[in-house]
Amino acid sequence: MSVITAVDTIDIRFPTSLSLDGSDAMNPDPDYSAAYVVIRTDAPDGLEGHAFVFTIGRGNEVAVAAIEALWPLLLGRDLEALFSDMGATARSLTDDSQLRWLGPEKGVMHMAIGAVVNALWDLRAKRAGEPLWLHLSRLSPAAIVSLVDFRYLSDALTPVEALEILEAAEPGREARIEQLRTAGYPAYTTSPGWLGYSDEKLARLCREAVDQGFPQIKLKVGGNLADDLRRMRVAREVVGDDYPIAIDANQRWDVATAIEWIAALAPFRPAWVEEPTSPDDILGHAAIACAIAPIPVATGEHVQNRIVFKQLLQAEAMGVMQIDAARVGGVNENIANLLLAAKFGVPVCPHAGGVGLCEAVQHLSMFDFVAVSGSMTGRMIEYVDHLHEHFEAPVELRDARYVAPSAPGAGTEMRRASIERHTWRGAFETEEKETMQ
Amino acid sequence: MSVITAVDTIDIRFPTSLSLDGSDAMNPDPDYSAAYVVIRTDAPDGLEGHAFVFTIGRGNEVAVAAIEALWPLLLGRDLEALFSDMGATARSLTDDSQLRWLGPEKGVMHMAIGAVVNALWDLRAKRAGEPLWLHLSRLSPAAIVSLVDFRYLSDALTPVEALEILEAAEPGREARIEQLRTAGYPAYTTSPGWLGYSDEKLARLCREAVDQGFPQIKLKVGGNLADDLRRMRVAREVVGDDYPIAIDANQRWDVATAIEWIAALAPFRPAWVEEPTSPDDILGHAAIACAIAPIPVATGEHVQNRIVFKQLLQAEAMGVMQIDAARVGGVNENIANLLLAAKFGVPVCPHAGGVGLCEAVQHLSMFDFVAVSGSMTGRMIEYVDHLHEHFEAPVELRDARYVAPSAPGAGTEMRRASIERHTWRGAFETEEKETMQ
Repeated sequence: MSVITAVDTIDIRFPTSLSLDGSDAMNPDPDYSAAYVVIRTDAPDGLEGHAFVFTIGRGNEVAVAAIEALWPLLLGRDLEALFSDMGATARSLTDDSQLRWLGPEKGVMHMAIGAVVNALWDLRAKRAGEPLWLHLSRLSPAAIVSLVDFRYLSDALTPVEALEILEAAEPGREARIEQLRTAGYPAYTTSPGWLGYSDEKLARLCREAVDQGFPQIKLKVGGNLADDLRRMRVAREVVGDDYPIAIDANQRWDVATAIEWIAALAPFRPAWVEEPTSPDDILGHAAIACAIAPIPVATGEHVQNRIVFKQLLQAEAMGVMQIDAARVGGVNENIANLLLAAKFGVPVCPHAGGVGLCEAVQHLSMFDFVAVSGSMTGRMIEYVDHLHEHFEAPVELRDARYVAPSAPGAGTEMRRASIERHTWRGAFETEEKETMQ
Repeated sequence: MSVITAVDTIDIRFPTSLSLDGSDAMNPDPDYSAAYVVIRTDAPDGLEGHAFVFTIGRGNEVAVAAIEALWPLLLGRDLEALFSDMGATARSLTDDSQLRWLGPEKGVMHMAIGAVVNALWDLRAKRAGEPLWLHLSRLSPAAIVSLVDFRYLSDALTPVEALEILEAAEPGREARIEQLRTAGYPAYTTSPGWLGYSDEKLARLCREAVDQGFPQIKLKVGGNLADDLRRMRVAREVVGDDYPIAIDANQRWDVATAIEWIAALAPFRPAWVEEPTSPDDILGHAAIACAIAPIPVATGEHVQNRIVFKQLLQAEAMGVMQIDAARVGGVNENIANLLLAAKFGVPVCPHAGGVGLCEAVQHLSMFDFVAVSGSMTGRMIEYVDHLHEHFEAPVELRDARYVAPSAPGAGTEMRRASIERHTWRGAFETEEKETMQ
């Protein structure tokens, strides 16, 4: 038996606002940050579980405090017991009768639980000597079902239905594992499209994206319609008529504005419209989806939990589900989200970027391909070429596809030197700023 | 000109779990707590703004950290400028481009913003020498509209419609102020109904509630159907056939279970069914509301913001709106909620209890009566006789009605001795525990 002896937290921030990487209509000046957690044990293997809440700067310390609020639920716990029923383990965190008041299952407290759950999975996969996607892909359908909290889902997805989905995908698992190892998983890139970039930079990056073989790019919109029309024209001219360009409004619009604005951009044939309005507005998304069909609505990076995803699907409000590795209650809740998407026949194209989100979420898409949806059709993972060098196992792209990770773990471990250099001490140091510019 | 010189935070907790006051199917052992904030200025009047995030124990320190994350947005700010446009002031907190990621507009960060907004209103009302309900009731319709963030609301409520609602309620304001001063505002009581109580205690407290003149009681349900049936029978026998008994499931059920369980309890004619399922499940509430009509669904104490309230109304999922003073973004967002309820013709019966929630929310109901809905029909404020002695201006009930407060401020200031005695130092002291038992 081994027990959890420490749950370290570290406030890590990067001064990304200096370069306008990551700038969009709602987030003009993000400083990509991680409320980072390290789970340590007394096991002789010395392995640690690493993961994080992703934030964009101020308030990262609140996420750190939320992780620390989980200490009493973790310290001294028997690791083998936790690992033997990861469904119960995750629920023991979300169901704490007092902490639950702070959500329930949303916002800072839920994100902190997600980080801890992900750190436990990182450690479990390291112990198994497998990358997380493969570790999950080798679980039986029944074992996968046991990971999911079906509370509040049963009107849309029952454990029996989930089992049927997983059993239907069981044949061919090994072949799909091989396919991932040889050919990877498709990526699309958001790198050209940040609002803070000049038209020249936009055009150059669009050209590079096409040349690199990405099957889709994404542009940020929603700041100013004239700018959006001009930028879409610039991008369309570079990439040609048939190349998919998704657009992302980052929650800027009310329902009527969204419908009008998208109508104005429709001649440029967006591949999808992402976050047209508040992530909480299921009925608003449904109205927009109905009005802009056949252009699909994509959303999810700010969707707080499986209950909102469920409704977006029930209301036919979402044509593309964009799970995020660090928003919901961790791997377990994202498995619920993948199963919901499979049930409703909606493709999952995860949100990534930030710091470490590509590293983390690729495991979920690959698991989805092997064991849940069994398909890559219409599916790809967002890719932003940024901050990967800080990770022990940085994502690797080959021919614009994510290479299936082989390192044991969940991909969420940062390099020790990066952690030390970017630990927040109340202000960015000159040296850090120079690195970014 | 005066500026904010300090935003003090205090972690205050009461060992209420020892007495099972407040125990329900989802919250078996709450320790009522406040992440308390005091806004101080350099003004010679020495007045302070007091308010709090209400929590139920563990994690209260996370809410404290979230309030502290707002320091940079507050310290040194010109108070007159903040007070001259409280709409912009509240939006400057919810719209911080980096903190927004932690919600947006939900969970711990949003509750912290709500506490700060409420503390500013407390200070503004104290400066005006008025209780908050009266202070708000004397604003012009246009000034009230300016307090509301209509973002994400415009498909259900526009500023023009809000103005029309408020202008329609302008005649008779003074008469309604007088009515409040002479006759107060109706209360209903939850004191008999906590799950932890014996049948004998339940019966005794039901009898007392009727004798005291309360027009309605509320029972917690959702733990065990046989228990609920027995407890409803006990209560019904005490109060008689025609007396309203609301029931509260505190989110225990999935949709199908809710419908079945309520059908079993329907012979006891519940006045409303509160929180039948997840507060995030708008479509679930709509399905339940449709199935159990004409019994109305009541919800709101965990509704994260105006956007979810909007949808509950659009979907006809909620027959009674239960605003909470310390869950959303403060007074401003609750004015949005009151306007939404008025637009859709749904009565507002606020959630209260906890610590300080009665003191705070009565001001909103009284403002609603004077300036928004203009009506008390079908409206009452929850009342729990607990912890009021810790407040400078504790709620006062006369003939089972809230007496209109006359003390300047928002009612949210705790007594200094109570703050000092219940400041959390990592464990409850023996003396505190003895007070509770």
